[in-house]
Amino acid sequence: MAQRAVVLLSGGLDSATVLAQAIADGAEPIALSFAYGQRHVRELESVDQLIAHYHLAHTYRVTVDLSQWGGSALTDATQPVPVGGVNPNIIPSTYVPGRNTVFLAIALSLAESQGASAIYLGINAVDYSGYPDCRPEYLAAYERLAQLASRVGLEGRAPRLVAPLIQDSKVEIVRRAVQLGVPIALTYSCYQGLPQPCGVCDACRIRDRALRDAGHPELATVLEI
Amino acid sequence: MAQRAVVLLSGGLDSATVLAQAIADGAEPIALSFAYGQRHVRELESVDQLIAHYHLAHTYRVTVDLSQWGGSALTDATQPVPVGGVNPNIIPSTYVPGRNTVFLAIALSLAESQGASAIYLGINAVDYSGYPDCRPEYLAAYERLAQLASRVGLEGRAPRLVAPLIQDSKVEIVRRAVQLGVPIALTYSCYQGLPQPCGVCDACRIRDRALRDAGHPELATVLEI
Repeated sequence: MAQRAVVLLSGGLDSATVLAQAIADGAEPIALSFAYGQRHVRELESVDQLIAHYHLAHTYRVTVDLSQWGGSALTDATQPVPVGGVNPNIIPSTYVPGRNTVFLAIALSLAESQGASAIYLGINAVDYSGYPDCRPEYLAAYERLAQLASRVGLEGRAPRLVAPLIQDSKVEIVRRAVQLGVPIALTYSCYQGLPQPCGVCDACRIRDRALRDAGHPELATVLEI
Repeated sequence: MAQRAVVLLSGGLDSATVLAQAIADGAEPIALSFAYGQRHVRELESVDQLIAHYHLAHTYRVTVDLSQWGGSALTDATQPVPVGGVNPNIIPSTYVPGRNTVFLAIALSLAESQGASAIYLGINAVDYSGYPDCRPEYLAAYERLAQLASRVGLEGRAPRLVAPLIQDSKVEIVRRAVQLGVPIALTYSCYQGLPQPCGVCDACRIRDRALRDAGHPELATVLEI
C-alpha cells in the first residue's frame, strides 16, 4: 500500500513540483494548503486547479490568520510589495515571521492523525528570497523537534520532512517540473496577488528568469522585464 | 521599559499562573489564546475573565481548526473523554497531535512581529497527562528551532521559551498560584467542557487532588471523588 504523505501546497511552481515528486515517489498525497491572510490569496485558486489536475481526493485547507499582527508585506496590505529587484543579502519585507514553522506544525498534526509517514515541502535555499526558514539547518532542527513532539515520534515513527528542492537552483526546479509533467501554467507565484502576475516582485522575477534560462520563455509571466 | 512577553493562555490553572508569573517578572504580557476546535471551548470564557481581571490591553485569539482531522478525544466529539482515572504510563486519548507545536509556532510569529523577547507557557512535565510535547527536551528542541527559524533568531534575539512550571508538581503550581494571587476560581480545566467541571476527567482529577493537597479543598470542583 502506498505510504501517505502530507504535501504542503501553495499553488506556486515549487510546491506543485514537490507534489508531482511525491506522486512519482509512490506516495499517496494528502494536500494541505493555508489561508493565512496572504495578500496573494489568488494562489489558492491554483491550489484548487492543481488538486483537480492531479485528482487528489484527500485535501485540507486550514485557515490561520497571521495577518492579525502583520509584520510582513505579504500579510499587511498597508506595506508595499518590493518590486525593485532581488537583493540576496537581505531578508526582504515579504518574509512572514514564523510562516513555515506554523505550516509545518499544522502538517505534523495532520500527518500524525492520518498516519502519514512523510511531509513534503517546497522550501529552497538557493534561488529564494533569503528567508531563514528555508535552510537545511532549519529543516534538520524541525525534524529533531518532530521526533520529540509527538506520540509517533516517541515510537520512532515521526514523519520525515522531505524537501526535494532545497538544494536546487530555480532553473533545476523548472527542469524537474517539466520532466515530471507539472502543469506549470496552472501555478501562480506572484506576491502581489494580481489576476495577472506582476512580473516585477521577487517571486515573479526569480520564476521568470528561471523559466527563460531553462528554455521555456513562453511560460514566463511577462515576455521581457 | 518592560519587555514584552507573549503568554499562551488556555483559561486553565497552569496558564493563569504563568500569566501571573510573567507579570511578577516585570513583563508586559501579550495574551494569546486559541480556538482550535476544542470540545472544552468553555475554557475561552475563562481566558476572557482572566484578561479582564488582569486588565490586559494586548490580546490575540487565533482560530486554527485542528478538529478537521480529529485524532484526539479533545477535538473529536465522537470520542469519549476518559474518566476512569489517570494512568501515568500511557499517552491518553486527550493528547492532541501537534497542539503545542502549533501553538508555539503561532506564538513565535506573534512574538517576532511584536518584538516580544519571551514566550511564556504553562507546560508541565510532572503531574500532567503524559503528553510528549510537555517535556523539557521538547522545549529545548523548540528553542533551537526558534533560533534558526526567524529573522530575530539570526540576529541572536530569538524569544526565550519560558516554562516556569515545567518541573513543578501540581501542588507546587497551586501554591505558586495562591502566592501570586491568581483568581483560581476564574480558571477552568475540565476536558469535557461542561458548564460545571465534571470532576472525573484527568484534568479535573489532577487539579482537584492538588487543590486539596495544597490545603484549598474549597476550590476543588467537586467535594470528594
